[in-house]
Amino acid sequence: MLDQQTLTALFDVSYGLYIVSSHDGEKLNGQLTNTVFQVTAEPPRMAAAVNKQNLTHEYITKSGCFTISTLAQDAPMTFIGLFGFKSGRTVNKFEKVKYRLCGCGAPLVLDHTVSAFEIKVSQAVDMGSHTLFIGDVVCGHVLNPGKPMTYEYYHSVLKGKTPKNATTFKPS
Amino acid sequence: MLDQQTLTALFDVSYGLYIVSSHDGEKLNGQLTNTVFQVTAEPPRMAAAVNKQNLTHEYITKSGCFTISTLAQDAPMTFIGLFGFKSGRTVNKFEKVKYRLCGCGAPLVLDHTVSAFEIKVSQAVDMGSHTLFIGDVVCGHVLNPGKPMTYEYYHSVLKGKTPKNATTFKPS
Repeated sequence: MLDQQTLTALFDVSYGLYIVSSHDGEKLNGQLTNTVFQVTAEPPRMAAAVNKQNLTHEYITKSGCFTISTLAQDAPMTFIGLFGFKSGRTVNKFEKVKYRLCGCGAPLVLDHTVSAFEIKVSQAVDMGSHTLFIGDVVCGHVLNPGKPMTYEYYHSVLKGKTPKNATTFKPS
Repeated sequence: MLDQQTLTALFDVSYGLYIVSSHDGEKLNGQLTNTVFQVTAEPPRMAAAVNKQNLTHEYITKSGCFTISTLAQDAPMTFIGLFGFKSGRTVNKFEKVKYRLCGCGAPLVLDHTVSAFEIKVSQAVDMGSHTLFIGDVVCGHVLNPGKPMTYEYYHSVLKGKTPKNATTFKPS
C-alpha cells in the first residue's frame, strides 16, 4: 500500500483521456485510458498501456493495430462510462456511437472526440498487469473542434472515478 | 514529414512537465521532459522517455535509478531553460538550484517543483532515438504547494519551445 505522500505526488502527474480501440475481424471494441503518449518524434511513435484482462488487449494482440481517439472536454459522463466502466464482453459499445473504420479495420470514435490516430504495433512491452503497446503513427485525424479532456478536469470538475483496471487506480 | 492533420492531432495529447535526474557517483544531472507517466498501479511503476544522446541517459544507465521532479505551473522560463535547453556536459545545472539527494544518490529538485518520485529501473525499452526507462516507485515526496505545470500551459501561456531532443519535437 502506498503512503499518502506518494499518492499525492502521483496525482500531480498530468494526463489526457482517450479511447483506445481495436478489432477482431468485424468485432470492434474500445476502452477508456489515460496512459497515452508520444514516445519518439522521428519516426513518430505512440504508446498506450492496456490491462491484460481487457477485451481490447485481446483485439490489439490479434490485429497488431489500434486507434487512439482523444476525448473532448465536453464529453458527457454517460459516454465516458460506456467506455470506462463497461466491458465489451457484455456490451457492444460501437452499436451506441458514431465511428469510422480506419485502414487497419479498427474504429475511430467520432462522438465527443477532437482527434484520433491509427497506430501499427511495433513493440508489446510486458509490464505485469498491463502491456505497453508501442507503435508507429500511420496517420492522425482532426475530427471535431474543441479542447481535449484532461484527467485533471475529469477528476476535479466532473468528479469522475477511475476504473479498477486502470494504470493509475488508487483505492479510496 | 508528418502531414498537418497528424501534427494537429499530436498537439491534443496532454502531458505535464518534469525534470528527470540521475547521477554518476557525485556528478549530478537532470533534464526537462514531458514524457512521464504511471504504467501500472500494482506495483506502482512509472516510465520516462529519455533521448539516448543526453547525459541523463548515460547516468540512468549507469546508476539504475532516477528521480522525477514535477514542475510547478509558476516555474520561470530561465529555470525551465536551464534544464530544457542546456547540456550537463557544459553546465553544472545542480550548482544553480536547491536539491536533496534521495537514497539512490539521484537529486530531487526543490526549486519550482510540487512533488517528486524516486524510481528504481526495472526495464529499459529501446525505442530508437529514445530509451523508455520503466521502474518501481520507491517513494514519492510532496515538496511545495502549488499546481503542476502542464505542457499545454507551457506552450499556450508561456509560449515555450520544445527542445530538439524531445519525444514530441515538431520542426516549425
